[in-house]
Amino acid sequence: MNRACHGLWPPAATPFADDLAIDVEAFVHHCRTLLREGAHGLAILGTTSEANSLSLAERRHVLERLIAADIPPARLLPGTGACALGDAVELTRAAVASGCAGALLLPPFYYKGVSDEGLFAFVSALVERVGDARLRLYLYNFPQLAGAGWSVALVGRLVSAFPETVVGLKDSSGDRDYLFRLLAEYPGFAVFPASEAVLLEALRRGAAGCISATANVNAPGIRALIDGWRGPEAPGLQAKAAAVRNAFQAHPLIAAVKAALADRYGAPSWRRVRPPLDGLTEAGWQALRRDLAAGVESAPA
Amino acid sequence: MNRACHGLWPPAATPFADDLAIDVEAFVHHCRTLLREGAHGLAILGTTSEANSLSLAERRHVLERLIAADIPPARLLPGTGACALGDAVELTRAAVASGCAGALLLPPFYYKGVSDEGLFAFVSALVERVGDARLRLYLYNFPQLAGAGWSVALVGRLVSAFPETVVGLKDSSGDRDYLFRLLAEYPGFAVFPASEAVLLEALRRGAAGCISATANVNAPGIRALIDGWRGPEAPGLQAKAAAVRNAFQAHPLIAAVKAALADRYGAPSWRRVRPPLDGLTEAGWQALRRDLAAGVESAPA
Repeated sequence: MNRACHGLWPPAATPFADDLAIDVEAFVHHCRTLLREGAHGLAILGTTSEANSLSLAERRHVLERLIAADIPPARLLPGTGACALGDAVELTRAAVASGCAGALLLPPFYYKGVSDEGLFAFVSALVERVGDARLRLYLYNFPQLAGAGWSVALVGRLVSAFPETVVGLKDSSGDRDYLFRLLAEYPGFAVFPASEAVLLEALRRGAAGCISATANVNAPGIRALIDGWRGPEAPGLQAKAAAVRNAFQAHPLIAAVKAALADRYGAPSWRRVRPPLDGLTEAGWQALRRDLAAGVESAPA
Repeated sequence: MNRACHGLWPPAATPFADDLAIDVEAFVHHCRTLLREGAHGLAILGTTSEANSLSLAERRHVLERLIAADIPPARLLPGTGACALGDAVELTRAAVASGCAGALLLPPFYYKGVSDEGLFAFVSALVERVGDARLRLYLYNFPQLAGAGWSVALVGRLVSAFPETVVGLKDSSGDRDYLFRLLAEYPGFAVFPASEAVLLEALRRGAAGCISATANVNAPGIRALIDGWRGPEAPGLQAKAAAVRNAFQAHPLIAAVKAALADRYGAPSWRRVRPPLDGLTEAGWQALRRDLAAGVESAPA
């Protein structure tokens, strides 16, 4: 029996107040909206969420606040990766103790050129120190930002060593060969591409679902593709979802997603990002709007 | 009057016990040894110290323990950079409150391709939130690991905006043009190259001193060069110091420095590194020993 997550898990963006504090109320509202729109769960505290720009205390706090607001923890998959083993253990323990569906684990991302052996040692130590049979780890592969990734061989080694614990992977690499190799070599392992542009092909090859930044703004479109991928309408659903995704490609992704959410919620504060990121300028937003309109028009009806 | 640090500030390596906890006693002993050997101060909690593999709590704790062991805080320059503004503020506040000479600031290092504007906003927010006139910031430039650096233009902008606060920079880039441009353009700004291999030339151009990983094992040699750089013996001192440095170049630097310290202190536990780094193998150590012996032999007497 595969107990891993599946379906649509948007990496929910994190709104900030004017002092840059997390706007918890707006965040809860956004999370509820995504679930109502068809998200199976929420991959909070990831890259799109600016989790690495949140302090350790904030990362714990925001998870507690969501659960206190009756977002079911079983529908939460928080990012718990950190450069320091101790910090990653603390965050992962909190996720497990809260009853979360799992934890999404970036590799430690400061040192570069680290070995598979070193990453294996990191995960082993994490699993041992969390010490909880309920732990479900999803590896988070984003070598462009982390400077380290989970190689196909390392994934196999981790799954063999911790078959009940290392149950899935989110792939943000954009490397189709890597994605398709994982799907081919580890059937039953829950792989989530980070872009809906390749989703139909990935679902046909056994992907578990999708964790995409643009699911913040197009959850219904991606959900429709996940529900309908076996049907005759699948290519059209794929083209429509890809059109939205592609409209964002020319823009800084996190700032662009937040600008679109600001527009959607009529709340300009949603545009705020934390330094070192820059928010979208007004001109940038107008360009994104044009790209979005053109993309949606060009997609099949 | 230039109140910035100057001279030799070794980035003290951090020893670990067999459960990977910080071996505080061994660390205090190492710090005292370096000061006795001529270090003007200690750049603790940097890259060589594996600071980003220490939890936030450990980074605060180890600073407190050194001060409790009577290492004068005015001779400590802890690394306080973090990806999250809140964490960097917490660590920097602790350094200032403890009376440290300053704080060495890595840029936030998760997101890549960040703008000078975004980094300026990060430092501005940090300075404002720390809110203490005693703060002395040293920028830590290591783009190969951080994926972001302090451009010459950005340094100028920060120095102009915070002339009493942003007082220096450690350069680990290995980019001589960058180093020499900083020295030429900002006289009085305290620039520390991270390699003693270029130290004589840098001192002639106005460098404040040196913060080098290999100062963990060759503090007396580098101190002699810093003291004697105006004298006739300077080229010989430079060649000797460079010979030690160069012997390490073919090896993973942090693991190699720790292996040399294990040998020196007769304490094999010093070889331990935290994951994701790998320790030096016995074969690696033998190769390093040969390189060190050959390097020292080839240097002028």
